[in-house]
Amino acid sequence: MARQLITSESNPLVKDMRQMVRSARHCRKAGMTIAEGIHLMQEALKRPELIRKVVLRSGADAEGEVAELMPAIDAARLPVVELPAHLFNTVCPVDTSVGIMCLMSLPEDGEIRQGEDALFLDGVQDPGNVGTIIRAAAASGVKTIFASPQSAWLWSPKALRAGMGAHFQVQIRCSTSLEEAIEATGGEVLVADARGGEDVYKEAWGDKATLWVFGSEGLGVSEKALSLADKILLIPIEKSVESLNVAMAATVCLFEQRRRRLNA
Amino acid sequence: MARQLITSESNPLVKDMRQMVRSARHCRKAGMTIAEGIHLMQEALKRPELIRKVVLRSGADAEGEVAELMPAIDAARLPVVELPAHLFNTVCPVDTSVGIMCLMSLPEDGEIRQGEDALFLDGVQDPGNVGTIIRAAAASGVKTIFASPQSAWLWSPKALRAGMGAHFQVQIRCSTSLEEAIEATGGEVLVADARGGEDVYKEAWGDKATLWVFGSEGLGVSEKALSLADKILLIPIEKSVESLNVAMAATVCLFEQRRRRLNA
Repeated sequence: MARQLITSESNPLVKDMRQMVRSARHCRKAGMTIAEGIHLMQEALKRPELIRKVVLRSGADAEGEVAELMPAIDAARLPVVELPAHLFNTVCPVDTSVGIMCLMSLPEDGEIRQGEDALFLDGVQDPGNVGTIIRAAAASGVKTIFASPQSAWLWSPKALRAGMGAHFQVQIRCSTSLEEAIEATGGEVLVADARGGEDVYKEAWGDKATLWVFGSEGLGVSEKALSLADKILLIPIEKSVESLNVAMAATVCLFEQRRRRLNA
Repeated sequence: MARQLITSESNPLVKDMRQMVRSARHCRKAGMTIAEGIHLMQEALKRPELIRKVVLRSGADAEGEVAELMPAIDAARLPVVELPAHLFNTVCPVDTSVGIMCLMSLPEDGEIRQGEDALFLDGVQDPGNVGTIIRAAAASGVKTIFASPQSAWLWSPKALRAGMGAHFQVQIRCSTSLEEAIEATGGEVLVADARGGEDVYKEAWGDKATLWVFGSEGLGVSEKALSLADKILLIPIEKSVESLNVAMAATVCLFEQRRRRLNA
């Protein structure tokens, strides 16, 4: 397909993408996200029907890994837009990019089944944490992710980047309530709480499907989550250390679950 | 103590700190780091002898958490420098600061004992990953951290921030070889390798002290580490997911060790 060269800062695509990079709210409103870099482009190219525009920095496709991606992009007949470096940088979600990204629609919701392991983000704020938790979930075999309206948007360019492609391997539902998540999966509600609870290693859990709940960086889980919990669980860390970051805590819990599932 | 107001961009302290924020090499050369934010300041104030300057954004100490820190700073008779916001931002390692940080020396090396659990960073590049691993180590009870010369500097302002105070609870040795680390602790050398190895959950390890080895983000562990390994271990993740980030992988391994230690 013919490649379009854009050199104007006032081009509508450039203006739209600049807003999307600055604010996840604009992405959400548009129902789109931005996937930057080689690995995310490879993942996105498995779903070419979602890609609206491939955006190249002028010259980036001359050699190396970007050049290697081009045949697949051409084969899928995807529209390619080229921006000079100074313009590319203003619409790119990372500081140092290899020079390729795409604007993409979100996948349609697939089915969520009763009895599948899932997790619920109860106000997790940082898009990096959100993406890391989605990656840990997919790696540990958990394929269903819910998030409260107070959580960061799960499809923001930053969350997508931290997820490193895991977003495309799981079912994602933003702006749900914990009650809706419980109804959809029927899992045992396991709330991770740094303030107290049963020892995650010693307590019996996981005989049936689970629905993990992880809370916000500052405040932890909500009162509502505590009231709906089947079990409140604590990671027994050294007393001298204040806490684990929520993404690390989620990784510990999800992989303890992984260990139990593999041993069962 | 009298507070110094600095308004000139060419002030030597401002110039030094600007270089330190831009490049970990400058920090390393100066033998200093920058601790930013309330939580790191609280940790640093436990070691007031290390603090060279407290740096305030003008007005930040008028109320809130920064104001609450001031009595301890005054009691320790620490020199305080005040910078107007535009100048403060140029010497601050984070984009959105609460308005307080300090320039500090590094603690002196303490003792490393034979038979203590330890870990070795074999070329981990990202300061955020380095700091997160130090935090996970401290939380899991591992108090001795070695790093190869190829790893990011463990005391950089970014690594310090990701560590959230854990740096002050462990022994840190930068620019060491794996052989030196083995000699210092005598631990069983456990190399985490995403390319293959024994199942970390099923394999027997941890009867004696361990020395974990985690490799670089792109390339994984070095050939040398593989050749010196007592065991090469693999986290059994879902096949559809390419890998875990090194900080997550380290968290999984260190907390599986925590589980075994607590069960023993």
